[in-house]
Amino acid sequence: MTINIGDRSVAEYVDAHADEAFLGEDGLVGWMRIPSISADPAYVGEVRSSAEWLFRALRRAGFPTVEIIETAGLPAVYAEWPAAGPDAPTVLLYGHHDVQPVDPPELWNSGPFEPEVRGEELFGRGAVDDKGQVIVHLLGVAAHLHATGRAAPAVTLKVLIEGEEESGSPNFAPLLRAHAERFRCDVVVVSDTSVFARDTPSLCTGMRGLVECQVDLRGPDVDLHSGSFGGGVPNPVAALARLIAGLHDADGKVTIPGFYDRVVTLSDRERALFAKLPFDTDAWVRGPARSLAAAGEAGFTTPERLWARPTAELNGVWGGYSGPGGKTIIPSEAHAKFSFRLVVDQTPDEVVDAFRAWVEAHTEPGIVATVHRNGPGVRPCLTPLDDPALQAATRAMERAFGGEILYTREGGSGPEADLASILRVPVIFMGFGLPDDRIHAPNERVVLPMLRAGAKAAAYLWEELARR
Amino acid sequence: MTINIGDRSVAEYVDAHADEAFLGEDGLVGWMRIPSISADPAYVGEVRSSAEWLFRALRRAGFPTVEIIETAGLPAVYAEWPAAGPDAPTVLLYGHHDVQPVDPPELWNSGPFEPEVRGEELFGRGAVDDKGQVIVHLLGVAAHLHATGRAAPAVTLKVLIEGEEESGSPNFAPLLRAHAERFRCDVVVVSDTSVFARDTPSLCTGMRGLVECQVDLRGPDVDLHSGSFGGGVPNPVAALARLIAGLHDADGKVTIPGFYDRVVTLSDRERALFAKLPFDTDAWVRGPARSLAAAGEAGFTTPERLWARPTAELNGVWGGYSGPGGKTIIPSEAHAKFSFRLVVDQTPDEVVDAFRAWVEAHTEPGIVATVHRNGPGVRPCLTPLDDPALQAATRAMERAFGGEILYTREGGSGPEADLASILRVPVIFMGFGLPDDRIHAPNERVVLPMLRAGAKAAAYLWEELARR
Repeated sequence: MTINIGDRSVAEYVDAHADEAFLGEDGLVGWMRIPSISADPAYVGEVRSSAEWLFRALRRAGFPTVEIIETAGLPAVYAEWPAAGPDAPTVLLYGHHDVQPVDPPELWNSGPFEPEVRGEELFGRGAVDDKGQVIVHLLGVAAHLHATGRAAPAVTLKVLIEGEEESGSPNFAPLLRAHAERFRCDVVVVSDTSVFARDTPSLCTGMRGLVECQVDLRGPDVDLHSGSFGGGVPNPVAALARLIAGLHDADGKVTIPGFYDRVVTLSDRERALFAKLPFDTDAWVRGPARSLAAAGEAGFTTPERLWARPTAELNGVWGGYSGPGGKTIIPSEAHAKFSFRLVVDQTPDEVVDAFRAWVEAHTEPGIVATVHRNGPGVRPCLTPLDDPALQAATRAMERAFGGEILYTREGGSGPEADLASILRVPVIFMGFGLPDDRIHAPNERVVLPMLRAGAKAAAYLWEELARR
Repeated sequence: MTINIGDRSVAEYVDAHADEAFLGEDGLVGWMRIPSISADPAYVGEVRSSAEWLFRALRRAGFPTVEIIETAGLPAVYAEWPAAGPDAPTVLLYGHHDVQPVDPPELWNSGPFEPEVRGEELFGRGAVDDKGQVIVHLLGVAAHLHATGRAAPAVTLKVLIEGEEESGSPNFAPLLRAHAERFRCDVVVVSDTSVFARDTPSLCTGMRGLVECQVDLRGPDVDLHSGSFGGGVPNPVAALARLIAGLHDADGKVTIPGFYDRVVTLSDRERALFAKLPFDTDAWVRGPARSLAAAGEAGFTTPERLWARPTAELNGVWGGYSGPGGKTIIPSEAHAKFSFRLVVDQTPDEVVDAFRAWVEAHTEPGIVATVHRNGPGVRPCLTPLDDPALQAATRAMERAFGGEILYTREGGSGPEADLASILRVPVIFMGFGLPDDRIHAPNERVVLPMLRAGAKAAAYLWEELARR
């Protein structure tokens, strides 16, 4: 992790102020002492204290406009700093100030809200998810101003730090819609993810979308005796199994007509860059996936399957008897829950419509099928590799971390997708966590050199975005 | 329902004594007042009273040996009456003196244990299942003795009336094994079934067997996040669906290798006789099957599917999330319960072995499957149409009911299969119920003319069996 020559000014500023920013009581450590657990109503006051702490910190950092924005739930914090010049781009920086619950508390080696430094690691809830990554930007903008010698950043900076990310962001899309004009920007920067590995700095370029459905099949009006009726009437559990079995072909491809029509194909360059990541599939299968084998769509590697290909997954199935021993019935009903992970340009609406039509076309005689959609779903988002803002972020990362910056994506979905689809701008995921930071688990930590490198990357980012 | 000329003696005796046998307090009505519910421990004493009532009735009927046989559960009643001559065949007559519970009591139009005659029907629990059909034989043997003018029946009569049939006959097989020598016979006669319809008298020639299994599939060690892992690891619910879907081919045939190897094929004559039954498939689908369509093995009619073809049915399936809304997981486990209805000469052991091998051969990479057998299962039984005892029963029915006697089978299993497999003799199912007698339901009834015709058929049966 070397700093490029010529970036000495930023690097020196960050290195000189890192301890104050990350370990000081007016910095990250002080903020981490506030247990801003959004999922637990007992902590409502603490989430508000966290918002107020951040309000003061943004003021101290020099943002001319800082405001606590109320929602139907917990408060967000918003700040604006207009650029020095009139033609500068506008950036919206997203993060969150709430944290995950700490259960089980007995597994923590130090108090979750008593931050503790051990070696080059800082332990405590919110260290990396996401308070640490917000502080990175406070230090970053200070380093940027120091290095440029200007009183305002090279871009117009809008900072939106929500307070409900860890409880599903129920009020985030309404917040975005209500303030869409105010949040108008040219690019969104999200700092709430990880690099691929400590020695493999990377940017995340997109997230899969999601839509969920339940299918209910009905056969006989009542459970029937399998002796008297078995072999003569439709069995909805068997019919459901055939329906599910038909959802994928022998190559693991989803068979719903049109499912892949809007899927943006991976380019050779993207595949080549994915292939450069030191992804050890066997270790992944045995480790985080806790499985016996990899599986999935033929013709794609595991990272490609997880990040760049849509899926149809079964989340649950039930019908008939599930108690001890046996019960010789033909069940009246069978049910399954399906979730679809989507990639650009698939949309939840189109996928549900296609799924409904497919279920209708494949429902066997004597079976009545209904499809229920669970929730609106989430649109996928993806910033193309040649996007100028992503190029700028890549250069900023290269300057901060040294060496080649690779690209990942996330398989899941977050409120970030709302940013892309409501504000209709590219989203850059520039995160400084590591995969083994134990977010959401006991002993969450952040690696302090990652925060320092992050602050440098953040400082360079405003310069690079203004240059584009 | 006319009585053949030449059988005046039996017919006159039955008609003269039917009211006493079926409506008298020393006859069926008195017995029906005893609530011998075997499934409810509160009625243990009543089941014993029922056994004692039957003990006295068999004594009164003239059986020289009558005995209450204790089991590990509720008592059976056993009686013997040696034939007049030395070369006569030995018949074991099977029935049961326990009854079903009466829930819900408010749906009964008269008290379940206060027998009531309305028109030609007698209402009350046990009217047809099975006390009425036992009394048929007491009247039948009296008519037989009256008509033949002898002091002993033309066959050696062994009567075994168990007390736990309605609670699954848990002690019946051990009872048969413990007394196998004593129960030795040439044929078993079971009177606990129905004719096809009031104007279509019939004999049942067999019952399907049964064996049950549970299959457990395991994929990842824990439920996984479908965003982070979806598309990259095996999903046991989807794998289970494919396993189940592969259990039948497009013609509805079970695909397990060897499954049909031991199935005795329906003869052209059996199929022709089945086809003579006025079985209205549409009415059956809409009526008792409460379904929207018939379904099953191609090339067979619904009665053939239900009675003469083996099945693999799904009784239940579960795995993953089944609560409200969605949960974006890849489940760790998936489970299904299977039951197989068997026909001669399939055996539970062989079918389970073949199923285990098939599951093993069709388990996908990354999935661990285990097959658990639920219980020993029941062997199928079938008496061929050319069996001399069945021929004798057919002639007895023809004489009692007039017209052609057709043949049915039962799709389910009962303790009768134990009789066939433990005693290793043919079983004749000569029952006098009707399909709409509401057995096991409120307002169980028996049609009194069916009991009278049954008593005549029973009287002729001993004569016909001795003649064979």
